[in-house]
Amino acid sequence: MFQIKSRIWIENNQGIFLGEGRLRLLCAIEKEGSLSKAAKSLKMSYKKAWNLIDAINKSAPEPVVIKSTGGSNGGGTQITAYGKHKMIQFEEMKLRCWEFMKSEIETFNK
Amino acid sequence: MFQIKSRIWIENNQGIFLGEGRLRLLCAIEKEGSLSKAAKSLKMSYKKAWNLIDAINKSAPEPVVIKSTGGSNGGGTQITAYGKHKMIQFEEMKLRCWEFMKSEIETFNK
Repeated sequence: MFQIKSRIWIENNQGIFLGEGRLRLLCAIEKEGSLSKAAKSLKMSYKKAWNLIDAINKSAPEPVVIKSTGGSNGGGTQITAYGKHKMIQFEEMKLRCWEFMKSEIETFNK
Repeated sequence: MFQIKSRIWIENNQGIFLGEGRLRLLCAIEKEGSLSKAAKSLKMSYKKAWNLIDAINKSAPEPVVIKSTGGSNGGGTQITAYGKHKMIQFEEMKLRCWEFMKSEIETFNK
């Protein structure tokens, strides 16, 4: 029995916007509320995480990640409403694509 | 405007069966009628090409590539009818998946 596998990502003229690795980082930022904690939780260097976030923001028409300063916890890193919307859209789109591919592999296995 | 990009490949319990690189090699074998000529046309080492073909054949329920011996041209390498069928199926499946993804990205761009 063959299975279909895929990697799906989103690009525009500015370069890659979202892919598996970037989505994982955004989820970690959402959970941790901090870029350095998010990077640490993924065993990724702060520099690499920062570069990824910078690339995401630069390729997006609106900011996806923002730094929040001050407050009782001394500030942190947050996902914007736009960013959250795109994360959910990407997840849902992947699920629908995988569903479609699953139906396609049935034909391939015949 | 965002675009959706993807890599699609086929696996089973024996490992990877078909992907972009393997399909390219099979197409070159079909065109050249020889593994060494096919490898050369793709600027791939003979050893790498042989390993890929061996992996394809080992992961398939039927041979995809066979060595033909003798004849006026001294033998060569050929794609079996089964192999050709799977190559076409894979190509057609990818096209349908890309078509589906194109419809999905319209929603993402809204």
